[in-house]
Amino acid sequence: MSPLPATALPGLAQPLYESIADLPIVSPHGHCDPRWWADDSAFPDPAELLIVPDHYVFRMLYSQGVALRDLGIGVARADRNPRAIFRLFAQHWDTYLGTPSRGWLEHTLYRTLGIDVALGPDTADAVYDQIAAKLATPEFRPRALFERMGIEVLATTDAALDPLEAHEAISASEWTGRIIPTFRPDDVLNPARAGHADNIARLGAMTGENTARYDGFLAAIRSRRAAFRALGATATDHDVPDLMTHWLAPAEIHALHGKAVQGALSNAEALAYYGHMLVEMAQMSADDGMVMQLHAGSRRSTNRALLAEFGPDMGADIPHAVDWVAGLDALLNRVGNDPRLRVLLFTLDESTYARELAPMAGHWPCLRLGPPWWFHDSPNGIRRYFDQVVETAGYWNLAGFNDDTRAFLSIPARHDTWRRGVALHLADQVERGVFDRRDAERLAPLLARDLAKDAYRLED
Amino acid sequence: MSPLPATALPGLAQPLYESIADLPIVSPHGHCDPRWWADDSAFPDPAELLIVPDHYVFRMLYSQGVALRDLGIGVARADRNPRAIFRLFAQHWDTYLGTPSRGWLEHTLYRTLGIDVALGPDTADAVYDQIAAKLATPEFRPRALFERMGIEVLATTDAALDPLEAHEAISASEWTGRIIPTFRPDDVLNPARAGHADNIARLGAMTGENTARYDGFLAAIRSRRAAFRALGATATDHDVPDLMTHWLAPAEIHALHGKAVQGALSNAEALAYYGHMLVEMAQMSADDGMVMQLHAGSRRSTNRALLAEFGPDMGADIPHAVDWVAGLDALLNRVGNDPRLRVLLFTLDESTYARELAPMAGHWPCLRLGPPWWFHDSPNGIRRYFDQVVETAGYWNLAGFNDDTRAFLSIPARHDTWRRGVALHLADQVERGVFDRRDAERLAPLLARDLAKDAYRLED
Amino acid sequence: MSPLPATALPGLAQPLYESIADLPIVSPHGHCDPRWWADDSAFPDPAELLIVPDHYVFRMLYSQGVALRDLGIGVARADRNPRAIFRLFAQHWDTYLGTPSRGWLEHTLYRTLGIDVALGPDTADAVYDQIAAKLATPEFRPRALFERMGIEVLATTDAALDPLEAHEAISASEWTGRIIPTFRPDDVLNPARAGHADNIARLGAMTGENTARYDGFLAAIRSRRAAFRALGATATDHDVPDLMTHWLAPAEIHALHGKAVQGALSNAEALAYYGHMLVEMAQMSADDGMVMQLHAGSRRSTNRALLAEFGPDMGADIPHAVDWVAGLDALLNRVGNDPRLRVLLFTLDESTYARELAPMAGHWPCLRLGPPWWFHDSPNGIRRYFDQVVETAGYWNLAGFNDDTRAFLSIPARHDTWRRGVALHLADQVERGVFDRRDAERLAPLLARDLAKDAYRLED
Repeated sequence: MSPLPATALPGLAQPLYESIADLPIVSPHGHCDPRWWADDSAFPDPAELLIVPDHYVFRMLYSQGVALRDLGIGVARADRNPRAIFRLFAQHWDTYLGTPSRGWLEHTLYRTLGIDVALGPDTADAVYDQIAAKLATPEFRPRALFERMGIEVLATTDAALDPLEAHEAISASEWTGRIIPTFRPDDVLNPARAGHADNIARLGAMTGENTARYDGFLAAIRSRRAAFRALGATATDHDVPDLMTHWLAPAEIHALHGKAVQGALSNAEALAYYGHMLVEMAQMSADDGMVMQLHAGSRRSTNRALLAEFGPDMGADIPHAVDWVAGLDALLNRVGNDPRLRVLLFTLDESTYARELAPMAGHWPCLRLGPPWWFHDSPNGIRRYFDQVVETAGYWNLAGFNDDTRAFLSIPARHDTWRRGVALHLADQVERGVFDRRDAERLAPLLARDLAKDAYRLED
Repeated sequence: MSPLPATALPGLAQPLYESIADLPIVSPHGHCDPRWWADDSAFPDPAELLIVPDHYVFRMLYSQGVALRDLGIGVARADRNPRAIFRLFAQHWDTYLGTPSRGWLEHTLYRTLGIDVALGPDTADAVYDQIAAKLATPEFRPRALFERMGIEVLATTDAALDPLEAHEAISASEWTGRIIPTFRPDDVLNPARAGHADNIARLGAMTGENTARYDGFLAAIRSRRAAFRALGATATDHDVPDLMTHWLAPAEIHALHGKAVQGALSNAEALAYYGHMLVEMAQMSADDGMVMQLHAGSRRSTNRALLAEFGPDMGADIPHAVDWVAGLDALLNRVGNDPRLRVLLFTLDESTYARELAPMAGHWPCLRLGPPWWFHDSPNGIRRYFDQVVETAGYWNLAGFNDDTRAFLSIPARHDTWRRGVALHLADQVERGVFDRRDAERLAPLLARDLAKDAYRLED
Repeated sequence: MSPLPATALPGLAQPLYESIADLPIVSPHGHCDPRWWADDSAFPDPAELLIVPDHYVFRMLYSQGVALRDLGIGVARADRNPRAIFRLFAQHWDTYLGTPSRGWLEHTLYRTLGIDVALGPDTADAVYDQIAAKLATPEFRPRALFERMGIEVLATTDAALDPLEAHEAISASEWTGRIIPTFRPDDVLNPARAGHADNIARLGAMTGENTARYDGFLAAIRSRRAAFRALGATATDHDVPDLMTHWLAPAEIHALHGKAVQGALSNAEALAYYGHMLVEMAQMSADDGMVMQLHAGSRRSTNRALLAEFGPDMGADIPHAVDWVAGLDALLNRVGNDPRLRVLLFTLDESTYARELAPMAGHWPCLRLGPPWWFHDSPNGIRRYFDQVVETAGYWNLAGFNDDTRAFLSIPARHDTWRRGVALHLADQVERGVFDRRDAERLAPLLARDLAKDAYRLED
């Protein structure tokens, strides 16, 4: 018997949930590694699978005083003791109570992996052994899991300089799972990224364009976008720590690009340069039809000692307030009325849901709102999202759900959390008389799957 | 039978709602056209009545890719095809699911207009014909509707330069409906408004004052305020895109006014000038008793292509964050302790409800909080408002409800939404033990009608 | 019979509440006067006890047009008419409906004081007489009340220059109640405080250090911290109106200190100086183990006329937006990874709960989140707090509850409000399947008492 409690949702939510619980999964944005399906090798040990790469998981232990090295972070894989790491994690299982990580891990363990012992400090070894045994079987190889999870399509996120070899291999294989890349050009567009000038040079080498000149640089980006599209990509993605867009005069952007290739931009110039490049990307999206995703407002690596010792993505990326109206002014006023453009917005500043994002999505034809992102992709976060966006944006200006995860095994768990949230929201709307049950029944699959396909132009 | 679902509110909310559902309507702030009641002509066709002038309605269609010209925007009335516009609207009826526009339109169609066919893509013509037939009858003329809706008093919003001829005509007629103007001097006070310098000159011509001099300008404004009061006005209204108030030294404001009449203020000077004028307005309100309304924080016409082609009010007014404490510092510290002053605050930045507005209203004797404004005048918006303001401001520092609409037929719908929200809120308070049912029964009519009358000094 | 309604909480909330309702009270932060227990004299009259010193209570009356002098504010005690003040308060009893003040006062009157007449305009005298009679009895002396309330430990808040005579007296007495000081050095650290330069000199005189020199100044502060610890203090507290921390080079801070002792800092220099001193305090906390509390974001005394006439704390302290990530950057990057450090954060800007504070507390080992503060220490405020912090911070990064009150008699009422809020929150989690009833039963006493003891290092 599964240790997962069989909780029925209240009232109408339960039948609405059941009507969408088993729909195929559309995963249009995430960070899984395409090599998993290119190679189809067994996943590594439980610690490597569930703890070491998951900053949701290890940040919480770090906040409770656990040293990152004791969790294998900054330790060569050969020197890690996965069982000891798993025991340390299990000792702190209580600290995840109330967090979505707890819910995702429970779903992953008890449902996706089929573990039949409840995790806790005393059962760490038993659970560890069960997971390890499962991972050794063919049924838990990446391709088999992908199929059993009912994934219709999954998009990875890939740097502009990524040669896309894994995607090529999947495409060339006989396996038919639909896994597509997403074009993420931050490393060549944002001068604040490490190695930016070098990356521009590498982009030139990769595409045969003279990226030291601005027009050659744009041509090189267009070339990479086409290469991504050839492997099925329908979208781009952009991390925007400090949201600001600009449209600079030709002389100005040429001059800035001249400095950029030498790594000589000041901070203010770097912001202006990146702000201009985002508008260029929007123009290219209008031209080539790639859906543009903007993830804005995460202040990266705010713990500089950890950044120096362990690198980025150590759980110290903290959101800050975003001004979407000012930030997108240049982009929207240049391309926002173009009927070919689609831009999906993701925020970590929930105070902008009702104040800025829903009114903007309810006006601009190019905009759709992405689902709750990162810290807010949780039962209460989903409730706050629907509460604050639907009344102004309606449902058809939303982009459905995406799991945005690098933890492949948690994908069913995350979609399940969303689908429960959808059912609870729709049931609440019916109970308060906003619309009737038949409307809710139509909206449920729209929110669970169809809007995501439509928003990302993933038509079959 | 009405297509409107007969939804009972849960628990105590239903009897509380029933106790206030049929109270007379007090509408102390809105944008109806007083000529409707001066002339008492039939309303035009259904598209002209429900779609073309309603930016809530057409912005949503624009966000879904519908061209504004296809909705008659920017098209001479003679060249519009109202039936085609109505069909286009009906095709997209689904996109309004979950929005207050949907609820208001349903109430307007099925209750106020008595349409007995459910609107949808297939019934557009039938609904159109029923509406048109109703509008042709005497029962749906403006005065008859005003009476049947049970409107006790309705305030329009009128520019300082408006000669108030329609209000004069209503006042001179035998008809007894109480329709009063509201003094909205933005065009003569805010240098960011188009034609500001000309407007100052026109104000001089209208009042016989030398408005090129600052003291003559103030005298002219006082003269217009008195003219409004003579026709029943009890309030002023001010649109404040970027909230900031200042009290400038005489030499400074005289110098700025000298530039203002020549249209020669810089952006920063224009902001300072307007910030000073708001304090002057507060001082005049303390003197003449007119209630001062501040609607702050809407960034107007953020889609400049639409502004250039169609003008303002095209659905691209997007809120931004407001700092009420800094913004009102000069005004409150100059006049805020004057027991004669009353200032009503309206925000689109809900993050200020609990953080700034409720603490301010719970301290300053002059302040009361206006109801949820614009995007937030919705079932969930009302819930968030009560949740965040009542605990610090109490009920007696609130200004009740106003519908703020230019869509006359939707007035009963909007007050009905508010009254349901009041009932749901009070029932929730009783269920959690905050107060008992008798308190809730006393508070219900206060929130539904009496606070609005009191806040706007609309004593009979 | 008590006039307090016997409201049962819905569902599982009631048994959860009952399981914690009578736990001992841990009050690790507040503003009670230690002389009450040093002297153990009777409390003064009802107005002096419940109205004159409570800015929650009198600010609401001021907002409704009551003059502060009519409430005894700014009036010598001998010239006050406490019964008239109490009558005036009772006349406006309705205006508190929906506020936590109302709930606290009802609990204080009907439960803690055992008044058996419901307060209202007509019963002011009867209630007044009953309170006065109670206060005259030995059972309502400070020490007896402390014991009957079941207070396990209570911390006061004491200026760095406070000689702590009352704490010495309590400590030297035979009475065993645990009352400890908290080190609040704002007056000697923040140049924006009145008399700052004088206070530095007084600090030198008090400690025998040469505080005109920066190293002597730091030594003097260390000396006062030790004196506080000797009387049981485990924590410091810092009011931070405009959150910003800095780590300045030695030459720079020495120069600023040289100006500070002469009261010659500019506003910008004063902010930099205070921002640096907060980092010094964090370093001292890492060294001596005192828990550091930061209360940030209250703009003090925004009504300057009242400040001039009556002094601070007149109900015109209004919150403003806070940027926690930027504001704590210098402090956290200098000391934040030190395992000895503990910093508790309190905000009045709820938009930072989910956006900044929960992610920060879920990462930095030194951080824990304080409970809802001031305006937000209310039933809905508690609900919003749990809703927005738990999913990212979990429960073990919270600091439990503190009442933060100078109204001693309201302490049981405030803890009761929190405990009901805890029970409602946990019941909601169980009902939505986040965790099961046994988890909720374990979490309830943790949130009601144990986390506070742990966070403040109040181990027995």
